[in-house]
Amino acid sequence: MTSVLHGMRIEGISAYAPEHVWSNARVAARLRLERMRTRRGGNGALSAEEAKLFETSDRWVRRFIGFTERRFTSEGEGTIDLATHAARELLQRLGAAPDGIDAIMFGSVTPSYLYSPPDAAMLQDRLGIPLWQGAAPREIKGADLSLACSTWVASLMLCYSLIRSGMAKRILLIGADRMSATINWRDRGFATVLGDAGTATLCSAVPEGEDWFRPEQFWSWLDGSQASMILTPSGGSRHPDPTPTEVEAGRNRLAMDGAMVRSKLVPFVGGPAADAALAKAGWSFGDLDLVSMHEANRTLNASIIELWRKKGFHGRVLDADGRFGNTTSATIPLALALNPDHLLVGNRFGLFAFGGGLSASFALGTIRHSLPTFVRMGAG
Amino acid sequence: MTSVLHGMRIEGISAYAPEHVWSNARVAARLRLERMRTRRGGNGALSAEEAKLFETSDRWVRRFIGFTERRFTSEGEGTIDLATHAARELLQRLGAAPDGIDAIMFGSVTPSYLYSPPDAAMLQDRLGIPLWQGAAPREIKGADLSLACSTWVASLMLCYSLIRSGMAKRILLIGADRMSATINWRDRGFATVLGDAGTATLCSAVPEGEDWFRPEQFWSWLDGSQASMILTPSGGSRHPDPTPTEVEAGRNRLAMDGAMVRSKLVPFVGGPAADAALAKAGWSFGDLDLVSMHEANRTLNASIIELWRKKGFHGRVLDADGRFGNTTSATIPLALALNPDHLLVGNRFGLFAFGGGLSASFALGTIRHSLPTFVRMGAG
Repeated sequence: MTSVLHGMRIEGISAYAPEHVWSNARVAARLRLERMRTRRGGNGALSAEEAKLFETSDRWVRRFIGFTERRFTSEGEGTIDLATHAARELLQRLGAAPDGIDAIMFGSVTPSYLYSPPDAAMLQDRLGIPLWQGAAPREIKGADLSLACSTWVASLMLCYSLIRSGMAKRILLIGADRMSATINWRDRGFATVLGDAGTATLCSAVPEGEDWFRPEQFWSWLDGSQASMILTPSGGSRHPDPTPTEVEAGRNRLAMDGAMVRSKLVPFVGGPAADAALAKAGWSFGDLDLVSMHEANRTLNASIIELWRKKGFHGRVLDADGRFGNTTSATIPLALALNPDHLLVGNRFGLFAFGGGLSASFALGTIRHSLPTFVRMGAG
Repeated sequence: MTSVLHGMRIEGISAYAPEHVWSNARVAARLRLERMRTRRGGNGALSAEEAKLFETSDRWVRRFIGFTERRFTSEGEGTIDLATHAARELLQRLGAAPDGIDAIMFGSVTPSYLYSPPDAAMLQDRLGIPLWQGAAPREIKGADLSLACSTWVASLMLCYSLIRSGMAKRILLIGADRMSATINWRDRGFATVLGDAGTATLCSAVPEGEDWFRPEQFWSWLDGSQASMILTPSGGSRHPDPTPTEVEAGRNRLAMDGAMVRSKLVPFVGGPAADAALAKAGWSFGDLDLVSMHEANRTLNASIIELWRKKGFHGRVLDADGRFGNTTSATIPLALALNPDHLLVGNRFGLFAFGGGLSASFALGTIRHSLPTFVRMGAG
């Protein structure tokens, strides 16, 4: 191995969305059902405040979130299954042999198993990546990575550091989440938002002159003072034993202060955060041909884009059109995979992930080779 | 920022172990108590096979695992609290200002919260790492990282890639786990083994000539075909809703096939895995002055060392002497911190992590600057 610096390209992206389509109306009906169950099981009528948490409608979700539907996996399937579908599709369509992969970076906030085994290890087996090379064990690097809604871009950044430093040549980057496992059906906050999807991206070393990125084209941010805005009260190592009452109330599921998230993130991502990332790279808003943002809420994203337009952004926004929900670690690669016609060689792109933590992770790059993408929907 | 390659040194390591000391006898008593509860709640007597899972003794644990005691946190404290204690101690003792830290890599298999917020973000706030630099948001990279018992060395490897590639200059690396949150008290397998601890390590850029490592001195391995050997059956995204019966049976807690783990890992780590890592680096067993291994089981580790001795290893083994249990992401930095007198400039070391997945992650390096370490015990 040499100490030569390497560039990184993206060889291809695939996205898989599972079979069960949930319209906004179906989500609203599920919340109403939960409300009836709650009244039956609980002690008397809900207060007006409590009752509101179960109320939503197709019209409300379209207007305030911008989503029309999302997809959920079948029971018994987890993040590893979503990732496996996407990764198999990618390798097969690219004609890439599993034995070329020397690292698996598995970005997800919903690990298939608590504590162990890691999803990265399971994926090695699912894909048949060889364990031996003659009599010697074949090296394969890897880790499970997580940074709330910023997971995918943070993971891409770590893939870049491995390739840039010459420590890996061909990395399978996963962004996958079974967010349906995290939904509290007594709270419309996340129930109207979340979806399941898996994505796989092949990141490969190229000569430094063909690099899609540079180290200064990644920018990240952590603000733990806002940690409570998007938080699962019970079930982690601080409170590992949710009581039956807590489980009944959904306190082992994600909760969000949506208004606070919006009031914090729109001006921050729309203003100083994007400014700082562009300044670091020596870019301006006018340089961006394409942008893809973490799709947590399309009306929130529209507010950010509006701020950017005022600063000279006149590029195209690639998104999933509200048809898959917030799939957390999968949103950005899913949006790219859904828009193959706009991924043109020479285009400069910005990828903007932000959310829980609070956290943000941005990447700016240039498409320097053709970028094939693939999308597959679960057939049930 | 320049494209110059950087080296990495370790500026210091601190370890924190919490206040509640659990002797083997106390663990055995706790298992007996659980057995009584189980008989009362269940339908009649346990089979001999079932009853065996609750039986252990100080003598048995010392003989077959090599542990004398471990420490557990108080209720309501999680991994973030262990990490905060260790990180504050490190920065204070080194006289390092929080505003020099540009990345937090948080290695843990027991996140403080499920899904969100990430521990890396919370630690930013706990340490008061500045969020702003004048009118611009201050960049801070980070992620939560997990690879079962290989977490810490895999995280160190990613720290190295960030520094090597010029993407970070001073990284706070955490290895922390509240493993007490994962114990099934109806199964002596892990109950006799696990402990809680937090560690913090400061990784800093130095000129390439002073690098403690090189890219080829890291080696990793994933074997998902053995994923079931160390696994939590329920609670992850594949089975997110443990039933009350499953919770009662501890199926949302870690389980291990100890005999299988030993039969697989001893010959592998003792043989071809270590051979491959040394060969890649161009080192031999005789080059290693110091070794520290993931301390899951000291008798298992002794078997590995015995195999290495036959191949020419004549260095010193640094461990925690069985006094802290298997603290997962904390074992190796804890062992280093407990042995300050042996961390001599010029010494060549090997760090060997392995376990669930199965996974392995090894690092070989040379101590090129003084390496201060600090240990603090919780006072209760």
